[in-house]
Amino acid sequence: MNRQWLYAKQPQGKIGTDTFQWTETAIPAPKEGEILVRTRMLSLDPANRAWMMGKTYRDALEPGQVMSGFAIGEVVESKVPGLAKGDIVEGDWGWQDYAALPARRLVKRTTKAPLELLIGPLSVTGLTAYFGLLEVGRPKPGDTVLVSAAAGAVGTMVGQIAKLSGCRVVGTAGGQDKCDWLVRELGFDAAIDYKAGGVRRALAAACPDGIDVYFDNTGGAVLDAALSLMNLRGRIACCGNVSQYDVEKPAPGPMAVPGLVVTKRLRMEGFIVMDFYDRRAEAERRLARWVAEGRIKAVVDIVDGLDKAPAALIGLFEGRNRGKMAVRVS
Amino acid sequence: MNRQWLYAKQPQGKIGTDTFQWTETAIPAPKEGEILVRTRMLSLDPANRAWMMGKTYRDALEPGQVMSGFAIGEVVESKVPGLAKGDIVEGDWGWQDYAALPARRLVKRTTKAPLELLIGPLSVTGLTAYFGLLEVGRPKPGDTVLVSAAAGAVGTMVGQIAKLSGCRVVGTAGGQDKCDWLVRELGFDAAIDYKAGGVRRALAAACPDGIDVYFDNTGGAVLDAALSLMNLRGRIACCGNVSQYDVEKPAPGPMAVPGLVVTKRLRMEGFIVMDFYDRRAEAERRLARWVAEGRIKAVVDIVDGLDKAPAALIGLFEGRNRGKMAVRVS
Repeated sequence: MNRQWLYAKQPQGKIGTDTFQWTETAIPAPKEGEILVRTRMLSLDPANRAWMMGKTYRDALEPGQVMSGFAIGEVVESKVPGLAKGDIVEGDWGWQDYAALPARRLVKRTTKAPLELLIGPLSVTGLTAYFGLLEVGRPKPGDTVLVSAAAGAVGTMVGQIAKLSGCRVVGTAGGQDKCDWLVRELGFDAAIDYKAGGVRRALAAACPDGIDVYFDNTGGAVLDAALSLMNLRGRIACCGNVSQYDVEKPAPGPMAVPGLVVTKRLRMEGFIVMDFYDRRAEAERRLARWVAEGRIKAVVDIVDGLDKAPAALIGLFEGRNRGKMAVRVS
Repeated sequence: MNRQWLYAKQPQGKIGTDTFQWTETAIPAPKEGEILVRTRMLSLDPANRAWMMGKTYRDALEPGQVMSGFAIGEVVESKVPGLAKGDIVEGDWGWQDYAALPARRLVKRTTKAPLELLIGPLSVTGLTAYFGLLEVGRPKPGDTVLVSAAAGAVGTMVGQIAKLSGCRVVGTAGGQDKCDWLVRELGFDAAIDYKAGGVRRALAAACPDGIDVYFDNTGGAVLDAALSLMNLRGRIACCGNVSQYDVEKPAPGPMAVPGLVVTKRLRMEGFIVMDFYDRRAEAERRLARWVAEGRIKAVVDIVDGLDKAPAALIGLFEGRNRGKMAVRVS
């Protein structure tokens, strides 16, 4: 049987277990030009929640469809030249054991690494951090780099790549435990617990020379505080708005836009990792080398069992994970 | 005597005549290394109001000082090598007949053109439009360019330079008269009266292919509407926030920031014209040629008499001017 989680209904406010519905159906048969893939790992991402709110860089989720999500799997049967049984592939075929897919919806993975790394640090997560920080944020050695959701999948990578780039690195995270961990284990210069209040003052103390690059995963209060502390010609790499995804009523926009953007000559620029995929191979090689050499710690947080996927995603929005959260399916 | 307008007190809400105070004092004597300049024209700019609110790209205005403002004048007496009696210079020496200034606070103007052009279209105003549109907005032929405050000093230039660049050009302005004039006299493809309400719908109709470049002079409701209509990888050149300068309580920030900035991969970038002054000569030559050839209409709105400066600046915020507003002092 093919076990599936369907996207059952649009959440009002926080997602809950009733956002999803469990079902079992027949394993599909691949047509000519398709492969049958068996899911090995599911990636859980804040974007999963954003897709429920409407059209983003992809169509909105529609109730009744299989819950979408980035995954890694193994080819079980192939009717596609160049893909063979046993190959490892990635794509967005969602929360299910099996899927039949055309080749254009898949990418074959050739990097030799454990699935735990291929699902995040050496894939979407790591590449988001790599391209967003280096190509959009463009830090120079000596810059102060701030990253929000710093203990998350992207944030842990951004902070460490920024350290490799010779920057002073400050992160925000929820809770003092995570903050201590960022400094002790991942080499951050400072970390601020945004739940403790007084974010602006705490950031000002942690960034005595101001902020040159802000890698924004969250929007919300940290963005407001960062805008007020940005240096002249600072860059804000807009990666996500996770503080506003899982809420009933989004907060107002940042008051400092566009006023401080003008007077400080700031650049705020959004990006999606797929925009950079023509240079994916090079970036993946570098990330793999940094991880292999121990210069970057790939932090993964693995949950076992497809049945746990909804609870794990709910946990992601409650800030329970450290690093990349993924579900081991088989 | 040296007639002066002092900045008398910080306005709460709209500026009024009591924001300024008239005084007369002795004509200053230039020291060694200074010139004595006689003011010919005063530039009135939305920025004059912004300086009253606090530190921007310059220090805030302090009550009691001569009201700041960009001006053009004629050297009356020079104790500076390279500057002679009769030379035309520009600088920010404020609302007064005479000032004694060191050379570093002046720029000598060598472009031969009437003062009405030198005060705006061939100076700060024109250069702001030129560099902001071409270097920050980076339009390509076929792009749709939106400019707010399109009937103003910068907006009239932006629209016409965008037309020269092969773009479809849409403007917003206050009142149907101004909108008709933008289309009829300045060659805009469409103009929207933002005071008539329904700005988003009207802009959507005027921009059937979306917006590629938004030159933002205003912030506020037009920025909100523009964000929702920007195309993928659109650019917003953040030049000013004039909708929020002359108000008691600024409006909330744009809700679409950072959400739509991410999903549409937008770039919002602030700039100040002085950042580009190393390339001023080239830009000024081009603007002068375009005006001389009639490819751009330099629209100026001249008020006679230093005594009229406060009323003219109040009028600027009431939207009474078309094009560059300046005061002829002598």
